[in-house]
Amino acid sequence: MEGALKEVRTSRWLLAAVALCAVAPALAGQARPERARDLGIALEGTPGPLDAITDVPGVAVGHTTLIQGSGRLRVGRGPVRTGVTAIFPRGTRNLSEVFAGWFSLNGNGEMTGTEWIEDYGRLLYPITITNTNSVGTVRDAVIEWGRTRVSEVFNCCLPVVAETWDGELSDIYGFHVKKQHLFSALAAARGGPVAEGNVGGGTGMICLGFKGGIGTASRKLADDHGGFTVGVLVQCNFGQRRLLRIAGAPVGQEISDPKLCYDSPQLDSTRAPRRCPGGSAERKQEQGSIIVVVATDAPLLPHQLRRVARRASLGIGRMGGIAGAGSGDLFIAFSTMPTGRPDSTGVLSLRMLGDEGIDPVYEATVQATEEAIINAMLAARTMKGADDLVVPALPHDRLRAVLTRYNRLRRAP
Amino acid sequence: MEGALKEVRTSRWLLAAVALCAVAPALAGQARPERARDLGIALEGTPGPLDAITDVPGVAVGHTTLIQGSGRLRVGRGPVRTGVTAIFPRGTRNLSEVFAGWFSLNGNGEMTGTEWIEDYGRLLYPITITNTNSVGTVRDAVIEWGRTRVSEVFNCCLPVVAETWDGELSDIYGFHVKKQHLFSALAAARGGPVAEGNVGGGTGMICLGFKGGIGTASRKLADDHGGFTVGVLVQCNFGQRRLLRIAGAPVGQEISDPKLCYDSPQLDSTRAPRRCPGGSAERKQEQGSIIVVVATDAPLLPHQLRRVARRASLGIGRMGGIAGAGSGDLFIAFSTMPTGRPDSTGVLSLRMLGDEGIDPVYEATVQATEEAIINAMLAARTMKGADDLVVPALPHDRLRAVLTRYNRLRRAP
Amino acid sequence: MEGALKEVRTSRWLLAAVALCAVAPALAGQARPERARDLGIALEGTPGPLDAITDVPGVAVGHTTLIQGSGRLRVGRGPVRTGVTAIFPRGTRNLSEVFAGWFSLNGNGEMTGTEWIEDYGRLLYPITITNTNSVGTVRDAVIEWGRTRVSEVFNCCLPVVAETWDGELSDIYGFHVKKQHLFSALAAARGGPVAEGNVGGGTGMICLGFKGGIGTASRKLADDHGGFTVGVLVQCNFGQRRLLRIAGAPVGQEISDPKLCYDSPQLDSTRAPRRCPGGSAERKQEQGSIIVVVATDAPLLPHQLRRVARRASLGIGRMGGIAGAGSGDLFIAFSTMPTGRPDSTGVLSLRMLGDEGIDPVYEATVQATEEAIINAMLAARTMKGADDLVVPALPHDRLRAVLTRYNRLRRAP
Amino acid sequence: MEGALKEVRTSRWLLAAVALCAVAPALAGQARPERARDLGIALEGTPGPLDAITDVPGVAVGHTTLIQGSGRLRVGRGPVRTGVTAIFPRGTRNLSEVFAGWFSLNGNGEMTGTEWIEDYGRLLYPITITNTNSVGTVRDAVIEWGRTRVSEVFNCCLPVVAETWDGELSDIYGFHVKKQHLFSALAAARGGPVAEGNVGGGTGMICLGFKGGIGTASRKLADDHGGFTVGVLVQCNFGQRRLLRIAGAPVGQEISDPKLCYDSPQLDSTRAPRRCPGGSAERKQEQGSIIVVVATDAPLLPHQLRRVARRASLGIGRMGGIAGAGSGDLFIAFSTMPTGRPDSTGVLSLRMLGDEGIDPVYEATVQATEEAIINAMLAARTMKGADDLVVPALPHDRLRAVLTRYNRLRRAP
Repeated sequence: MEGALKEVRTSRWLLAAVALCAVAPALAGQARPERARDLGIALEGTPGPLDAITDVPGVAVGHTTLIQGSGRLRVGRGPVRTGVTAIFPRGTRNLSEVFAGWFSLNGNGEMTGTEWIEDYGRLLYPITITNTNSVGTVRDAVIEWGRTRVSEVFNCCLPVVAETWDGELSDIYGFHVKKQHLFSALAAARGGPVAEGNVGGGTGMICLGFKGGIGTASRKLADDHGGFTVGVLVQCNFGQRRLLRIAGAPVGQEISDPKLCYDSPQLDSTRAPRRCPGGSAERKQEQGSIIVVVATDAPLLPHQLRRVARRASLGIGRMGGIAGAGSGDLFIAFSTMPTGRPDSTGVLSLRMLGDEGIDPVYEATVQATEEAIINAMLAARTMKGADDLVVPALPHDRLRAVLTRYNRLRRAP
Repeated sequence: MEGALKEVRTSRWLLAAVALCAVAPALAGQARPERARDLGIALEGTPGPLDAITDVPGVAVGHTTLIQGSGRLRVGRGPVRTGVTAIFPRGTRNLSEVFAGWFSLNGNGEMTGTEWIEDYGRLLYPITITNTNSVGTVRDAVIEWGRTRVSEVFNCCLPVVAETWDGELSDIYGFHVKKQHLFSALAAARGGPVAEGNVGGGTGMICLGFKGGIGTASRKLADDHGGFTVGVLVQCNFGQRRLLRIAGAPVGQEISDPKLCYDSPQLDSTRAPRRCPGGSAERKQEQGSIIVVVATDAPLLPHQLRRVARRASLGIGRMGGIAGAGSGDLFIAFSTMPTGRPDSTGVLSLRMLGDEGIDPVYEATVQATEEAIINAMLAARTMKGADDLVVPALPHDRLRAVLTRYNRLRRAP
Repeated sequence: MEGALKEVRTSRWLLAAVALCAVAPALAGQARPERARDLGIALEGTPGPLDAITDVPGVAVGHTTLIQGSGRLRVGRGPVRTGVTAIFPRGTRNLSEVFAGWFSLNGNGEMTGTEWIEDYGRLLYPITITNTNSVGTVRDAVIEWGRTRVSEVFNCCLPVVAETWDGELSDIYGFHVKKQHLFSALAAARGGPVAEGNVGGGTGMICLGFKGGIGTASRKLADDHGGFTVGVLVQCNFGQRRLLRIAGAPVGQEISDPKLCYDSPQLDSTRAPRRCPGGSAERKQEQGSIIVVVATDAPLLPHQLRRVARRASLGIGRMGGIAGAGSGDLFIAFSTMPTGRPDSTGVLSLRMLGDEGIDPVYEATVQATEEAIINAMLAARTMKGADDLVVPALPHDRLRAVLTRYNRLRRAP
Repeated sequence: MEGALKEVRTSRWLLAAVALCAVAPALAGQARPERARDLGIALEGTPGPLDAITDVPGVAVGHTTLIQGSGRLRVGRGPVRTGVTAIFPRGTRNLSEVFAGWFSLNGNGEMTGTEWIEDYGRLLYPITITNTNSVGTVRDAVIEWGRTRVSEVFNCCLPVVAETWDGELSDIYGFHVKKQHLFSALAAARGGPVAEGNVGGGTGMICLGFKGGIGTASRKLADDHGGFTVGVLVQCNFGQRRLLRIAGAPVGQEISDPKLCYDSPQLDSTRAPRRCPGGSAERKQEQGSIIVVVATDAPLLPHQLRRVARRASLGIGRMGGIAGAGSGDLFIAFSTMPTGRPDSTGVLSLRMLGDEGIDPVYEATVQATEEAIINAMLAARTMKGADDLVVPALPHDRLRAVLTRYNRLRRAP
């Protein structure tokens, strides 16, 4: 990698757009990516104001995006297409614990801290997501960052860090994510709109045969269902194009090109995707994955949150996912309910949404997972990375045409 | 219930059709229910010859269907709309164990024997499915039946019996399933076409707002994927109509009637569904569930079969399922691979499909689960049960119309 | 079985002693079995007043004990050495739910209702324990009994019924436990002293090479640990004599006789235990198991109770258990904390013992499990059962001698 | 920390002894620590030749031990009492995968890679153990090390790294373990005797109220049980002294001093352990843990290894463990059985020890876990660390005296 690594903090879509200009100049000037709702895709449910995980009061998101270099992959030098994303459950100034639960739909992936979540259901640190090979660096950096910030000692030092694999677009064995990048993502975190697509941990990701990355969505429950908010953020890197369904339409079968391809002679890869033009609709090897983070202000206990996390599977099912063996499909859900302090006998007072009233939370989780994946694909821009691999973005106009053909647009966009 | 209980053994659709004549005379003469493939629904993958779980060599299925009485529910007397279904992994004459794995998508249900499956992955007895309140009777009867038939003592007496709730159409607290009914289902089991709809354990079930029950489907993998067969059988009783998707089309939103309703003045129920005409598209209370049985001849180990069972979730996601809190969504998968005998040191020889080649099995499981649910709904006939509750069948012609509108019919049927 | 089956309801040790007279006349006159504390065994911790699960306020226990016939095993006729035990969490008049959690140390056993407990952590019915082959009968009978007694519909019909195998002493394939026996055990349930040994579900059990059965113990936490009570009840049928440790002393190696043996010529068994005199210290085949029920009034949530249940493993470890492959070692824990009613938004108020204060509950669970197993063995009397198999009781005097040699008696008894 | 960090590679006890001289000069000259068998403790079973995990053919162990500085804790400078330990399943030159399974007895700890092990049961990299805050560094370093060494791409980059907390003796927030230390431990790995006590990841650990660390033991099964070997290695940092049992004797109650204490005026800690003389038998805060690694050459499948790992709990139960809430008790088991290569259809041939023959493996695991913990305590030397905290070694002579009093010495040592 020639020159200093360019770090792009992007907690908001505006910054993200700027960052992406470098690699996608044709897209410059686009103020804000079109999202699923903008396109008019027939989706169920009522989103919150931002249609983002940050609709859940307190939730803050920050990204560090690392994009540098081009051409042939040289381990340790680049090209770099990676980053880290951080999610604070209660905002950046309140590091008290929240209840959490997790689920593994397919375990070809890493999410640290899950033994603790499984047994004790308590989440202390911000959740972070990065590339597979940088989980360790980010994990220890979260602990270092937390030393002077969290007062909890009982379960200190077991942060949740998750990953997906960007080793096709990025020099993943170059270990380019450093602890400062984690600190930057944490410092950049805030509420409000969330940058999507080629940002943060999602920078170099490939989703259902198109460029993927970070996506988000939310649902606001009706008042007679408690009026709670459910927000989802995904780092989307899973799946095969031929299986892609959007709002039920077989989009992956309808849009068979542009394909993934190597736009240079130097590729050493003998398997698909092949040289451009031509290419293949599927990635060279399935090491895709999806991380789903579900946030809610509904008062849910750990064993309930475990069930909520599991529902992300159903949203993935709607998109055509099969949870392939090469995929790490790991989900975590947390509730921002205040948990109070123990009295002199060590006993806390809590609230709990009765199980009889939890179905709207489940339904919101399924819907918001589905929409967050679509948003990730819609926001992502075509990216050229290591060995000049080109991963095309999902073309909005052609998607619109397909959805029209399948009667899955709510209205003319 | 006046008069002797009428027991209907139905291992084949023909018998099923006869049995159903009593309650659905208008349907008499219909030789064989139209299935998803007959309708031309746009489904993925290549089914086996029967498009049924019995495409997996050795698998045999038998039903006992109990339909008796009508009118007001009197506990212990009827009306009865229930039964029991049995699945033999290796045929009725080979009771050697198979490897198995299981998964609970939502635990509001019972599947006995799972502690053993979880740890040891060995399935000894036929799998049986019945109504919620008859699990115990069936379980002990399986043990009684097995005493003179199985030679295994190590894990005897831990059969897998699963259930879904038919307490809206049937006198479930009347405990009408007796051990003889289990024996009949076992005796009736055979390969070949499998009766679907209102038969066996599925007799009184409600699925996604329409009459449900038993359904099945299969997939044959390509030779370069090993040429294995994956078969699925479901007992479908889950979900809400408004969420129903078929092949991606929002069928439940498009077909808002006929509704569930009480066709008599004597109902004591104050919640939906209401009196006819009118009614409600959703059942009175969510105690639905779905049992999914996945069979394969692919050589899979217990920990792999656990993963296969989990994939049924993704098929349910495609149908619009949210795994509601009131639902018992329990899945079991088994492999008919021969496991051989231990040598003198207690060591067995086995084969195992490498994980790198398992994705086609996953994909087949997702697809066949989706199709088996559709087949259950297509085969089921409108049923009137306890308190004259009428649960309408999914109308085939209207379904066709909806699918046409959403471009999800492969061809004019 | 000649003559009518003799049913013995034994909710208290007095009744139990009477019942046992029939088969153990030499023991008649013994008012109350000597328990671990009476013997002066060096055990840790402070028991509650009764040193029984009933020290937890509200907990009630009832047994039905079935002892009938002798001599050669004839399936369906006897001899019968079995029963059923029921535990009410909040007393016999309060059938509101409690929170619960469970754990399987080894899954060669059945505990119904665990899918529901795993996901929702709610226990509605009394817990019942019986022999392996009667789980179904008891399960359906609990549902029948509950129909007019429980108002809960959300999770009705998923009772927890557990088992261990008494097929060596009893005609287990005769299915002698009927639903009336379950009703009797429920009707007999009350607080106060709990009958131990050859009673209820424990009637025909073999534990660590001696006669086993039902045992119980409790711990009262110090006031600065909240003053909570932890009670344990076991149905003990696991283990091998050679591994038996009591309070750390290698009792099983020191007391190699009396052995299990067949006191008649008609045995058809070719494997150990052999004919008397002689016999074997180990049972014919390992199909032992242990069910552990942990009750507490500490305010614990489902995910905490899961952890508490898991600690029973450590008590079993102290006794020399290895959780053999033939053993079903299944544990359930519940908290009697009131859970209140949901408000208009479906939200409940709860209390929770903070995890930082839970260690005393863990320690109490380990200790009470250990002591309950010892109590089961001390209370059990030598029993002769099917095929004249004689299972000897642990001889108290020899135990005292061994413990003296290993310095594990607190005082001269 | 003044001066360069002193790294001590210790793959063998000799090196360990040398390394330890620096901090325990009084112990210099002691060629080899006395182990449980040397002392004559009454333990069950037959060890392998080395009574170490390396008795399992192929298993290699390497340590890097970091001991530097003294006096007041200054974050980032020291004192340092930490390290890393690596275990190769098949030797340092064969990096093909082995089958594995894991278990969490209490989840207050980290073991990376468990999602993958849980679902796929395949272990690719050496297992490594370090301090809590260095898990990330070690994890990424294992991946870096593996890049040019492992050919597997399917599950690359998901190494198993486990930890226990040494933050009382060591400057854990100084992050002193660097990737080179991991490389050194890997390079130092070999078969033969294994250094125990204050070495590798175990350098700064506290176990059951005394100095702990690394310990190992093994069992050789009888030929008629297959003649397999089971080896265990522990990094022991859990428990409370008052609960300590050795071979059943209440050692922790008998040896109430020497206590943990601060041998200097500068301690800022207000909770126990207190200043010397005096001190406390228990650590300042429970953040102890134990990692157990079980190796065997018995041909076991992933779901069997999961069960084997679970048995480590029973060994911990024998030692007086309660799996306190602050403890991360995480276990992993692997089998060195060759797994062969897939044929053209992706199918492998395997061998499997039948479950009916697995009890000797279970029993060996329980026994070897118990003995490995004792060996860790016997090998560890008294250590003075951060803030001059002194953690005393278990005094061998007093242990002998206690065991004699409880009749738990096999012979005069």
